[in-house]
Amino acid sequence: MPKKFVVTPWEVKGEVDYDKLIKEFGTKKIDDALLERIEKHAGELHLYLKRGIFFSHRDFDWILDKYEKGEKFYLYTGRGPSGNTHIGHLVPWIFTKHLQDVFGAELYFQMTDDEKFLFKRDIDLKTSMGFTYKNALDVIACGFDPKKTFIFSDIEYAKTLYKIGVQVAKHITFSTAKAVFGFTNENNIGTIFFPAIQAAPCFLPSVLKGKNIPCLIPAAIDQDPYWRPSRDVAPKLGFYKPAQIHCKFIPGLGKGGKMSASEPETCIFTTDSPEVAGKKVMNAFTGGAGTVKEHKEKGGEPEICTIYNYYRFFFEGADKRLEEVFHACKRGELICGECKGVLAERVKKFLTEHQKKREKAKDVIQDFMLKD
Amino acid sequence: MPKKFVVTPWEVKGEVDYDKLIKEFGTKKIDDALLERIEKHAGELHLYLKRGIFFSHRDFDWILDKYEKGEKFYLYTGRGPSGNTHIGHLVPWIFTKHLQDVFGAELYFQMTDDEKFLFKRDIDLKTSMGFTYKNALDVIACGFDPKKTFIFSDIEYAKTLYKIGVQVAKHITFSTAKAVFGFTNENNIGTIFFPAIQAAPCFLPSVLKGKNIPCLIPAAIDQDPYWRPSRDVAPKLGFYKPAQIHCKFIPGLGKGGKMSASEPETCIFTTDSPEVAGKKVMNAFTGGAGTVKEHKEKGGEPEICTIYNYYRFFFEGADKRLEEVFHACKRGELICGECKGVLAERVKKFLTEHQKKREKAKDVIQDFMLKD
Repeated sequence: MPKKFVVTPWEVKGEVDYDKLIKEFGTKKIDDALLERIEKHAGELHLYLKRGIFFSHRDFDWILDKYEKGEKFYLYTGRGPSGNTHIGHLVPWIFTKHLQDVFGAELYFQMTDDEKFLFKRDIDLKTSMGFTYKNALDVIACGFDPKKTFIFSDIEYAKTLYKIGVQVAKHITFSTAKAVFGFTNENNIGTIFFPAIQAAPCFLPSVLKGKNIPCLIPAAIDQDPYWRPSRDVAPKLGFYKPAQIHCKFIPGLGKGGKMSASEPETCIFTTDSPEVAGKKVMNAFTGGAGTVKEHKEKGGEPEICTIYNYYRFFFEGADKRLEEVFHACKRGELICGECKGVLAERVKKFLTEHQKKREKAKDVIQDFMLKD
Repeated sequence: MPKKFVVTPWEVKGEVDYDKLIKEFGTKKIDDALLERIEKHAGELHLYLKRGIFFSHRDFDWILDKYEKGEKFYLYTGRGPSGNTHIGHLVPWIFTKHLQDVFGAELYFQMTDDEKFLFKRDIDLKTSMGFTYKNALDVIACGFDPKKTFIFSDIEYAKTLYKIGVQVAKHITFSTAKAVFGFTNENNIGTIFFPAIQAAPCFLPSVLKGKNIPCLIPAAIDQDPYWRPSRDVAPKLGFYKPAQIHCKFIPGLGKGGKMSASEPETCIFTTDSPEVAGKKVMNAFTGGAGTVKEHKEKGGEPEICTIYNYYRFFFEGADKRLEEVFHACKRGELICGECKGVLAERVKKFLTEHQKKREKAKDVIQDFMLKD
């Protein structure tokens, strides 16, 4: 019997069958033909494409058609600022930075501080707006081009977003919003309107520049429903439908599920000290057998191992070496303690470097956030 | 059997029993004791108070308590800019101007161009935002003090309103909004959020100035439901509940119902040429008998006469003369043609003057609308 899993913008539970998700959501798999086309532009395929971490899309082929005919597209992604950034959040941002480099695309980065305030009972506006700025430092640390990147707070930028939002909202009934987002009568009226604000950046550059510009949204697959109404509404407003490219979830350090800030011991935050992060890695759930002896005899299960997945998502760029790790684990030659030790060192090194860049971002944040 | 009537923010139908409405809505009648208190401050009671046109309130006595203890209040009223202004709209504005003069109160005037766009199928955003500016000219022509008056478009001022709106919205569920505003599943999600934007000016000056300031809303009684959730939410946000003072509806020139822009022949628009307006008056429904002969014999019914009501609301300042008109009509001595002729002249004179002021308003509109 297949295992049950749930993927919505608010919940990811169980072991996700990504092929099944593609069918359920009605998206398309990134196939070899598409990968070849991307490779032509990029020179070399990004790690996340080679390893199937970005695996699904809507109209990305159309984006390439447009690009190849000389029509530029822009990138739109975002973050719900309800807490510190963890390295799971960085996956789509790192890939977005890659797309910016390859295609020279502008990036509109939305901080949904309104969403987090409206949807979370215990968070006040000051807190979510505060995390907008703290999280922006992590975005900037990813290396985006300040000349081509605009990071904005929904609350601060409402002047423009609300104007676009009401135009989207006029075409979305409560019935539709209920069906797509699972709203009930107990939802507050701010949450009900919010999807219109989340849709606004799909059309923002077109509105700002007075011409229709293709939009590509790199994001984790659970965010896909948010842009379904945007795609329905787009032609009614005279805009292109936003295209999307979807990634998988970076697993937490615990057993199963995605990295989630609500279980801090399973997350590596960008603000963790390297020592704390190293300890989290050493305490992580692995695919190793019960004892070292048993592991050496039977071998481990890298498929379900968080440590192996961290190599795959982030910390082992060399495909060959990654494969060696996989097989050495399978054969029981590579012991968990050793494997975790190497990862912990890499995580510490990564954090030390990221935190330096994050510190420098404080001096240039205005170049990204003040564009008007 | 009592006649049926309906009063909601979107519909006024039938012959309104205002005493019944006070009970239904749970507001208070403006009684003699309150009138005396107001008279002390105003020197003389405004026509609209003497004639019971402003007739109901919530906490206006509390506003006076505050004022008498030296705590200033501000005024908040507004307009849904979906078309040209007619003189029915001027009634609460003229009274608001009077309150500004008497109490030295600041006025925050909200143009709900978002509302009109969201609620009316056939109106685009350009149109409603356009009427924001056209209608503002009529507001300014009423003589408000530019130093104490801020007129704003919801769309243009969303930067600040949205930030307050989400804080209100968090405390209003769809259930509550359904009960108060009659929303259904077919409402678009913008209309559902809109009450939070309409509530925002109840707290706007307090937010801008960083202290709790009492708010008084002069408006027609049909708008009362809009501020019920605001009054519930106010203490949760740490603000005073907004007080209100309510007026009756100025009847249209047709038989029954309030003046409504959807029946232009029953409305005198501030943009009508004096000739056109004069003709509308001459074609109005009156309380006269079928023929002049019959009228002279039986007398007329000023109670149901639109012409008489126009004297009462607007065009006959002298109480004694108004009473004479009433009785002369009753006795059949005053013929409709004559009565309409006098009113038509007064309407023409009023429009000529108003249109001059409206023209001048174009030169100073920025003093009212650009405050940041």
